[in-house]
Amino acid sequence: MNVLLKDTPRPVPDIPAYSPSGNECALFETAWTRQLPLLLKGPTGCGKTRFVSHMAARLGLPLSTVSCHDDLSAADLTGRYLLKGGDTVWVDGPLTRAVRQGGVCYLDEIVEARKDVAVVLHPLTDDRRILPLERTGEVLEAPPGFMLVVSYNPGYQNLLKALKPSTRQRFVAIEFDFLPKPQEIAVVAAESGLDEAQVAPLVALAHRLRALKGHDLEEGVSTRLLVYCACLIDSGMTMREAVRAAMIEPLTDEPDVRAALLEIADAMIR
Amino acid sequence: MNVLLKDTPRPVPDIPAYSPSGNECALFETAWTRQLPLLLKGPTGCGKTRFVSHMAARLGLPLSTVSCHDDLSAADLTGRYLLKGGDTVWVDGPLTRAVRQGGVCYLDEIVEARKDVAVVLHPLTDDRRILPLERTGEVLEAPPGFMLVVSYNPGYQNLLKALKPSTRQRFVAIEFDFLPKPQEIAVVAAESGLDEAQVAPLVALAHRLRALKGHDLEEGVSTRLLVYCACLIDSGMTMREAVRAAMIEPLTDEPDVRAALLEIADAMIR
Amino acid sequence: MNVLLKDTPRPVPDIPAYSPSGNECALFETAWTRQLPLLLKGPTGCGKTRFVSHMAARLGLPLSTVSCHDDLSAADLTGRYLLKGGDTVWVDGPLTRAVRQGGVCYLDEIVEARKDVAVVLHPLTDDRRILPLERTGEVLEAPPGFMLVVSYNPGYQNLLKALKPSTRQRFVAIEFDFLPKPQEIAVVAAESGLDEAQVAPLVALAHRLRALKGHDLEEGVSTRLLVYCACLIDSGMTMREAVRAAMIEPLTDEPDVRAALLEIADAMIR
Amino acid sequence: MNVLLKDTPRPVPDIPAYSPSGNECALFETAWTRQLPLLLKGPTGCGKTRFVSHMAARLGLPLSTVSCHDDLSAADLTGRYLLKGGDTVWVDGPLTRAVRQGGVCYLDEIVEARKDVAVVLHPLTDDRRILPLERTGEVLEAPPGFMLVVSYNPGYQNLLKALKPSTRQRFVAIEFDFLPKPQEIAVVAAESGLDEAQVAPLVALAHRLRALKGHDLEEGVSTRLLVYCACLIDSGMTMREAVRAAMIEPLTDEPDVRAALLEIADAMIR
Amino acid sequence: MNVLLKDTPRPVPDIPAYSPSGNECALFETAWTRQLPLLLKGPTGCGKTRFVSHMAARLGLPLSTVSCHDDLSAADLTGRYLLKGGDTVWVDGPLTRAVRQGGVCYLDEIVEARKDVAVVLHPLTDDRRILPLERTGEVLEAPPGFMLVVSYNPGYQNLLKALKPSTRQRFVAIEFDFLPKPQEIAVVAAESGLDEAQVAPLVALAHRLRALKGHDLEEGVSTRLLVYCACLIDSGMTMREAVRAAMIEPLTDEPDVRAALLEIADAMIR
Amino acid sequence: MNVLLKDTPRPVPDIPAYSPSGNECALFETAWTRQLPLLLKGPTGCGKTRFVSHMAARLGLPLSTVSCHDDLSAADLTGRYLLKGGDTVWVDGPLTRAVRQGGVCYLDEIVEARKDVAVVLHPLTDDRRILPLERTGEVLEAPPGFMLVVSYNPGYQNLLKALKPSTRQRFVAIEFDFLPKPQEIAVVAAESGLDEAQVAPLVALAHRLRALKGHDLEEGVSTRLLVYCACLIDSGMTMREAVRAAMIEPLTDEPDVRAALLEIADAMIR
Repeated sequence: MNVLLKDTPRPVPDIPAYSPSGNECALFETAWTRQLPLLLKGPTGCGKTRFVSHMAARLGLPLSTVSCHDDLSAADLTGRYLLKGGDTVWVDGPLTRAVRQGGVCYLDEIVEARKDVAVVLHPLTDDRRILPLERTGEVLEAPPGFMLVVSYNPGYQNLLKALKPSTRQRFVAIEFDFLPKPQEIAVVAAESGLDEAQVAPLVALAHRLRALKGHDLEEGVSTRLLVYCACLIDSGMTMREAVRAAMIEPLTDEPDVRAALLEIADAMIR
Repeated sequence: MNVLLKDTPRPVPDIPAYSPSGNECALFETAWTRQLPLLLKGPTGCGKTRFVSHMAARLGLPLSTVSCHDDLSAADLTGRYLLKGGDTVWVDGPLTRAVRQGGVCYLDEIVEARKDVAVVLHPLTDDRRILPLERTGEVLEAPPGFMLVVSYNPGYQNLLKALKPSTRQRFVAIEFDFLPKPQEIAVVAAESGLDEAQVAPLVALAHRLRALKGHDLEEGVSTRLLVYCACLIDSGMTMREAVRAAMIEPLTDEPDVRAALLEIADAMIR
Repeated sequence: MNVLLKDTPRPVPDIPAYSPSGNECALFETAWTRQLPLLLKGPTGCGKTRFVSHMAARLGLPLSTVSCHDDLSAADLTGRYLLKGGDTVWVDGPLTRAVRQGGVCYLDEIVEARKDVAVVLHPLTDDRRILPLERTGEVLEAPPGFMLVVSYNPGYQNLLKALKPSTRQRFVAIEFDFLPKPQEIAVVAAESGLDEAQVAPLVALAHRLRALKGHDLEEGVSTRLLVYCACLIDSGMTMREAVRAAMIEPLTDEPDVRAALLEIADAMIR
Repeated sequence: MNVLLKDTPRPVPDIPAYSPSGNECALFETAWTRQLPLLLKGPTGCGKTRFVSHMAARLGLPLSTVSCHDDLSAADLTGRYLLKGGDTVWVDGPLTRAVRQGGVCYLDEIVEARKDVAVVLHPLTDDRRILPLERTGEVLEAPPGFMLVVSYNPGYQNLLKALKPSTRQRFVAIEFDFLPKPQEIAVVAAESGLDEAQVAPLVALAHRLRALKGHDLEEGVSTRLLVYCACLIDSGMTMREAVRAAMIEPLTDEPDVRAALLEIADAMIR
Repeated sequence: MNVLLKDTPRPVPDIPAYSPSGNECALFETAWTRQLPLLLKGPTGCGKTRFVSHMAARLGLPLSTVSCHDDLSAADLTGRYLLKGGDTVWVDGPLTRAVRQGGVCYLDEIVEARKDVAVVLHPLTDDRRILPLERTGEVLEAPPGFMLVVSYNPGYQNLLKALKPSTRQRFVAIEFDFLPKPQEIAVVAAESGLDEAQVAPLVALAHRLRALKGHDLEEGVSTRLLVYCACLIDSGMTMREAVRAAMIEPLTDEPDVRAALLEIADAMIR
Repeated sequence: MNVLLKDTPRPVPDIPAYSPSGNECALFETAWTRQLPLLLKGPTGCGKTRFVSHMAARLGLPLSTVSCHDDLSAADLTGRYLLKGGDTVWVDGPLTRAVRQGGVCYLDEIVEARKDVAVVLHPLTDDRRILPLERTGEVLEAPPGFMLVVSYNPGYQNLLKALKPSTRQRFVAIEFDFLPKPQEIAVVAAESGLDEAQVAPLVALAHRLRALKGHDLEEGVSTRLLVYCACLIDSGMTMREAVRAAMIEPLTDEPDVRAALLEIADAMIR
């Protein structure tokens, strides 16, 4: 489940490349066929957003993405009345547009959104597949070509921000994790332009740092940071400078933890 | 109390099929006859919403459903003034429309709504059967053909979100639970297209997992997830893949709990 | 203090029947004569609202009732500016209308309202008997024919929602409770159509359950639920079904408590 | 410090009668002469509001009273822009009106107001005696004839609602308490029409109940409740009924406390 | 650092008199010359506001003062759009006006303001000396003649309301305290008209009471209260009455503390 | 990483001088070349803002700076609808303007902003480099010439205000600290006009006080305060006066801590 592979042997035009690590492509297609909504779980920067782009393109479906946040309300998704020329006119939100037109609607980090959002999804995610618009009095039926995908990162879910069981139980779910080492080396080399031999120790270091998650670190190094690090090296920074700027400073502000990570890095990269 | 039975012997046209597990249909009809409001209690995905659709259709009543959420206020139910052409005009909310026209008004997950909603319901649920609209100065009398139905899931009620006794005591109440095993097998098979022999071990597994509720799991597997699981198998996924994606990942993010559930599943489905 | 008696010997036309259990009618009339505001205290469904309707009709006074809730503010009672044709026009709230026209203004569950409401009542409830409207600059003097009545349920008052002494001390107060057994039997029989012999064991059961209040139950069975129960029996449900749906399920969601209540019920009703 | 004496020997026309219990009238006049703002402290219903009406009338000053509450903001006192005919026009609040016209501006229960209110008062209560209106850009100078009086009840002040020292230190302060017994008997008799002999045991009872404040009662019986009680007796209620409705039920909802108070009352009034 | 001296030998016309107790005047002038922002710290009523008025007048600078409070937001300082004739027009706030015109802008009790205010000050208080107006797209450069002065009382700062180091470190700071005894006697006598011999014991008492700060009193007696007290005596109140009304009641509501303060006062003033 | 050096040997016209203390300039340029977003971490007043101004000018890029605060929302960055002539018209926020025009967009103290801001940055900081404007339906692609830089001070980050890992992991990060002693002396002398010999003991004192951070002081003396202090001395204040006003009073209000700091200062500066 991961990031774009430049120069991979068989790139389909317009389809963002994606390197699967399990049955996630088959599951997505089956969910699509059976009109089941999908929930993607996994850590930051492991490729969930890329996976959705890949599958939507592969199935030839329009994709609309909404990054959820603390203030995202149901009205932001469904639409609201705006004042135009003295009248209030209704303007569809991104979810309503997706339901009207079909295609994949992807709500990224769904647990961040306000709780009324989850409830708007309920009638869309049971056998009714409808979106009632209270404010306009409309009840939209989702066409067969509509699919709802949501994601979240269980790593830093908290009590106030858990998905309610009544929402979770409306989705088929896929657990994502980082790529196995050789696959991740290939991806980082392709993305950054750095050769695989130089990337290998960076990925080894990343795996070592990920093992510290939950102890000294809230979250491990993402594949994205690995790509950043390789880019800096590819542009002429030293390995040590690049590792510090892209793999250590973004992870922690604690002087003790940083010193420990630098020590690990120094031991592993030269 | 449960989900649609495709291919049941006597499907009445336009009436969503429903497989009763107790006296709930008689209670609904009696409450309707005596103009008593009704409260449905039960876990996620056990068929409360389907039951209301079934009964409304069977009694030939229009049905309007409102999914309640944290930001649903009294004004969302009763109506509000909107600005049109420089004037403010009153627009009825779904409860007001239902009171004017008669029929069943169903407020799903009532405890989620803001507290002012419960109080709007009070004069509708005692012998006055009126809906006062403070903002317009109207007092609507509910016609004999109006019935109020509300539901909630006592499973994850909390202190902040309990129904106040002064609200609860205004309803006749029905407790729902999952279907008995043979009935649930029939429903899942009918809904998914998978044959009953293949569905049986899934239902057995679901019953096993429901027994863990309150210990390792916040909520047990719903009938809806069983249907999802059977759909995935029916479309060619392996039993293990389908169980993981539809019956385990949606229930938990805890690695330990997931491992334990997978072990139970492996032991029971092969 | 209680619910409508159909078929009582001397029903005055247009006056909701009311079966007094103490000196509450005399107190209401004296408070009315001496222009003293009145506070009604008592549990859910014991007839406070009916009592006010009865007295207002008996004294020939118009009655306006406001159900208070968490979001009810002073402006909801006194009025606010609305936008009409580009101008803001003042629209009286229900309290202001009552002060202008005279009659009884009844604020139900006053402790639920926002705190600014209580303060709006202060100048109306001392010897000034005025309602200052800050926003319009008016100071309304209450006519002799205006009376303020408020109610609340001390049973589930909490720290955040107590009436302040500076508010309480502005009212003459009446404590309400459920009717004595024979009177309650008569009322339930009259309301439901069920004969008194069948009602008697229901009332006995209710008295038994009310004794559990504060231990296993937050609140006892109201007279209203007794009427519901009798209605269900009158319409053909069995006594056990009716008791469960109208007297037990509305009281608790706790499986243990429900089982205990059912046991008590089984022992007492057959 | 107390309520209106009907039929006192020397009533000045249009001046609400007031029976002083200390040097409060002289202090008010001196503060007025020296242009010092005044703070009145004391329990509910002891006559602070009446005192201000009395002094304002005696000094021939217009009086404007604002009851403060949780949602009272600086803008409610100073004024705000309203929309009229498409324009926003400024409308003075009661404090601004009082500063423009002179006279006494009385803010009742100042600690209840939002904190921005206290700060609006600061430039008015030091030697600048100005009211800056940020929104209009005006800076109003208070005329010599303007006086600010505020009050609060220290009895149920809490941590969140204390007057800040920087506000308190801007006022000369007077502590109020209930009247001495003979004076209170005279006042209650005059207000209610009941003769003093019948009032005396009521006042004795009130003094007894006030001694319980802080132990079983949050606040003692106010003179206002004594007047209510005497009114009920004067209108024919029995002493016991009147004491219960006007002096006991308004004080407590606790069955034990009520029983204890009734016992005290029974012992003292017959 | 203190209040106006009437009749001091050399009053410059239009400059509020001020009696310095340290190098604060030189520091203000130097900060002004070097374009450094200034922070004044000190207890209630010790003369910070008067000091700013004095210095602004002495340097011939216009002064605009904003009393900060809990609801004061960045927009209140910088300006906002108002609706006029159907259009939104921008209206400068007091800080923006001061930056456009030059002069001293004084934010009194800065810690009371909402946190966004502090951040608006940041670009004004580093070497950029700019005020960006996000809403209009303008970036105002402060002219050399602009100076920002803020004040707060460290005495009752709390955790929620501390100045952030990133804000504090942008100011040169002066600590204020009450005047030495002889200077304070002179000031109080001059302000009140009472002769110094009568003022002396009042100031002695104030020093005694200030020593209790932090033990029984939240804050000591301010010079302002001393002036009030002397005014009351000058107008004919007895010393004891005046001390109680102006130096004790404004400090405490605790009966025990008040009694102790009265005892101290009785011992010291006769 | 620090403040402007007046009179440095090679000042490039229009480029704010900056004295680097590490590889930060190379890292900024590499990040710019590879289109990677940048995160600057470090204490108050150490020169982060100056560094960004320097690099933007050096690379010939327009710079727009936004100081983040508690109430800064996504809409403040992206834009909002305003009412003009009866219509709502869209007005770009500073982030949208920067994305449309290219150049550096610098969000200072990003952790202070509301959480929805961080999420708006997500699609801009992964390989998509897009800014979706939900309200207008536009999706802006950042041009190659756009770079996002954010900063924060890890010193007083708290639990409520930490950067989420999913945000942090989108940036290459640089840790800033104060300059080494000789470099800081040169900067302070250049900025203030005071000669280096006089500045040296001030910088020595600052290093001593910074060592107390975390023990008695929340934050150490910034280079900015050192410059203030040197300015005061340069304008004729004594060293002791200047140190107190610019290096001690801005750091603490605690009498004990202040006394200790003064003692250290007295020992070190003469």
